[in-house]
Amino acid sequence: MDIKEDIIQSHQRISSYIHRTPVLTSQMINEITGASLFFKCENFQKMGAFKMRGATNAILQLSDDQKKKGVITHSSGNFAQALALAAKNLGIKAYIIMPENAPEVKKKAVRSYDGIITECKPTLEARETTTNEILQEKRATFVHPFNDFNVILGNASAGKELLEYQPDLDGIVVPVGGGGLISGIALSATAFSNKCTIIGAEPFNVDDAYRSLESGKIEHNLTSDTIADGLKTSLGDITFNIIHNHVEKIIRVTEEEIVEAMQLIWERMKIIVEPSSSVTLAAIMKSKSEFANKKVGIILSGGNVDIQKLPF
Amino acid sequence: MDIKEDIIQSHQRISSYIHRTPVLTSQMINEITGASLFFKCENFQKMGAFKMRGATNAILQLSDDQKKKGVITHSSGNFAQALALAAKNLGIKAYIIMPENAPEVKKKAVRSYDGIITECKPTLEARETTTNEILQEKRATFVHPFNDFNVILGNASAGKELLEYQPDLDGIVVPVGGGGLISGIALSATAFSNKCTIIGAEPFNVDDAYRSLESGKIEHNLTSDTIADGLKTSLGDITFNIIHNHVEKIIRVTEEEIVEAMQLIWERMKIIVEPSSSVTLAAIMKSKSEFANKKVGIILSGGNVDIQKLPF
Repeated sequence: MDIKEDIIQSHQRISSYIHRTPVLTSQMINEITGASLFFKCENFQKMGAFKMRGATNAILQLSDDQKKKGVITHSSGNFAQALALAAKNLGIKAYIIMPENAPEVKKKAVRSYDGIITECKPTLEARETTTNEILQEKRATFVHPFNDFNVILGNASAGKELLEYQPDLDGIVVPVGGGGLISGIALSATAFSNKCTIIGAEPFNVDDAYRSLESGKIEHNLTSDTIADGLKTSLGDITFNIIHNHVEKIIRVTEEEIVEAMQLIWERMKIIVEPSSSVTLAAIMKSKSEFANKKVGIILSGGNVDIQKLPF
Repeated sequence: MDIKEDIIQSHQRISSYIHRTPVLTSQMINEITGASLFFKCENFQKMGAFKMRGATNAILQLSDDQKKKGVITHSSGNFAQALALAAKNLGIKAYIIMPENAPEVKKKAVRSYDGIITECKPTLEARETTTNEILQEKRATFVHPFNDFNVILGNASAGKELLEYQPDLDGIVVPVGGGGLISGIALSATAFSNKCTIIGAEPFNVDDAYRSLESGKIEHNLTSDTIADGLKTSLGDITFNIIHNHVEKIIRVTEEEIVEAMQLIWERMKIIVEPSSSVTLAAIMKSKSEFANKKVGIILSGGNVDIQKLPF
């Protein structure tokens, strides 16, 4: 299997359905951090997050028969919207399993992309039972939000674009939730750079990926108490394996550091990013000496935040 | 006098001191408005507003002797910061007259660019007296925030860049405060397009420019009660004359329409814009039939907003 060729093909496959997002720089934030930072703005991606890349790539790999029957996933976050919109773009059905206590604004967003929502009790067991019921009934194809190689290859296109824009990056800092984004970026760095290291960023409060790298097996979170609501998930076997092999380290940050970095990005760059994206800059500000005078990419993973409930 | 050549030279003169800001589009906002909109993002300009263009151009036109003595202006808004930063970039002094009740955050921003602040009582008379005192004492050159032809020519570069990006625009919608921005954009449309009309956008509550076009002379505002704090100023004789000759019309919008448009830009485009910038989209949403199926530029004039005090 040739990963480089796979990423190139995935990128071509999805390119008419996604934005090639801009890369921004900030002289002021460079002065503050002492590094030369390149922000890949997936907050400007369609539906507001990188997830559109992986969802589109996964759907485009289906057979005609599979496409007819539709796709299914469980997610209360950005992936639900991404799969619904990617499916809508291709004229196929998307069944989305969401916990009944998911915010109304998230359900509304999925419905606006014609996603067909089935609600379930907010437990892992109910989620799986309900997913299996719809799978049986509709014969739809399940697409995992991150532990799916086609999703990861789609996400990799963001890293490819960033390295095309700035080929001599010393490193890229990526948020870690389920690991689908950092896995894709790590594969793209392997394929398109001979020196770019990949560093994860994660809240202390949900540091399962950090602990997984320490222990050598998938660890889980005991709490989900973080403002970075996209990063609560544990790794899957596919993402753990890629991260284990290709990610140099994971830097953990506090909630206060996340909010401070988020405010800095909003105020200095005039762009709207989620807390889950802001862990990256927080990690760099926390480890300045490590990044000093280096060219560092940052993946701003998304911008879907309730602007009526800000943490600052 | 060849306006086209003047704009080209001004643009070249300032180009190494400003950002060539991106032009963004939004499929979703196009669907909502029925028009094809091109947002010129001066919120991403250095110090967060288009004012950097005019301030830089004005300073670069000074003689060496004038440069030695520095520049002076009165402003409590974006122009104070712009003149301070432009002066700093060129190694010259900027004296800024600000009312003593100006927000501390604005004073701090001016000081961060090494601007030398003199405070005065918050009256027109005190402002002029204090300005004259500093003028006498320092022999510095006064730069008016908008009623200055070199400032207007600098601002024109934003329109030139937008028309280079999208040469077939049917129109450009521009916020109107003192008129320095819309005057520059109008001159650039005259110079670089044979069909692009210029439309102003202004809050009902400070509709002095609308009334000035109606009456044929400069009108003033009786209240300053608008969230669009950059648009409270009346026109000057230079800007009135250009607007009178080159602006097709001015559309007025309510405070609610400004906030609604601002929220739409934040949520859909994931960028931070001031209320003063949002009057443009509000005007288009209010007059949909007029803009339907047209290619329309929008000048997002700035992004300097207190993110801890949002109107939504």
